[in-house]
Amino acid sequence: MNQKAFQDYYPEELSHCYGCGRLNEQGLKLKSFWDGEETVAIFTPRPYHIAIPGYVYGGLIASIIDCHGTGTAAAALYHAEGRKMGTGPPVRFVTASLHVEYIKPTPLGMSLEIRGKVKDIKGRKVVVSATVSAGGEICVKGEVVAVQMPEHMMPRSSVA
Amino acid sequence: MNQKAFQDYYPEELSHCYGCGRLNEQGLKLKSFWDGEETVAIFTPRPYHIAIPGYVYGGLIASIIDCHGTGTAAAALYHAEGRKMGTGPPVRFVTASLHVEYIKPTPLGMSLEIRGKVKDIKGRKVVVSATVSAGGEICVKGEVVAVQMPEHMMPRSSVA
Repeated sequence: MNQKAFQDYYPEELSHCYGCGRLNEQGLKLKSFWDGEETVAIFTPRPYHIAIPGYVYGGLIASIIDCHGTGTAAAALYHAEGRKMGTGPPVRFVTASLHVEYIKPTPLGMSLEIRGKVKDIKGRKVVVSATVSAGGEICVKGEVVAVQMPEHMMPRSSVA
Repeated sequence: MNQKAFQDYYPEELSHCYGCGRLNEQGLKLKSFWDGEETVAIFTPRPYHIAIPGYVYGGLIASIIDCHGTGTAAAALYHAEGRKMGTGPPVRFVTASLHVEYIKPTPLGMSLEIRGKVKDIKGRKVVVSATVSAGGEICVKGEVVAVQMPEHMMPRSSVA
């Protein structure tokens, strides 16, 4: 995909996240995009992201749901405010809660598709539901309650 | 601590988990122990386990809660069956669901204490509640619903 991901619009100082920061060399660098009304990210776990032989580690799946959720929340807020991502004051969400249901073991060795839907958006809070599929089958469902980062936690140069 | 961790009793074929497998060189190698009626693990995030500057990545915290939860579940089942860990048929739990509440940002640069309590143990299912503290303050609360791994997923040499 040539389009910029949600995470590519995060201010530089807020782009170090292990899960999705473009500047974290050791990190997962998750990239999320709009796909109609939903959001999507594709991620291929590495061989060492194993739980038991043949299956993906659940903590990794929780991590990609988390970052896809906060990314979706940011994109949704820009959308709700009628502005393009990256314009005006920066928006960055943090996770208030994360719920993950492991429906079936997620096979290791293929790309995973993470899809997000905005369930609710009110004030500084966005609720995002997510699924993680392998080979077209949903293996995991999740929900992220994301809240806009308090100003006092924003790096000074971002709130100028 | 000189005692063996719960995870050190997992059969070799089930010790590759990214979160707690002793044989996963790239992994986190979480180690959990009994502390009275509770269980405890100490984990120090690496500098790249960052969310935003100064704070720990939520997906990493979800991961250590996950592995501490399944480890606690295994230890609890051995205890309930009146046998020492590592004796008799191997026990290994997988995660059915994971819930994490991020109460306050978790500071990066110090050891985290993960504490677990068995809330319920029934049949093949164990529910474990957990807290993650930094400098004595609880930053995160979680709950893991762990289920004993189905036999068909156990490596053949483990179910002999």
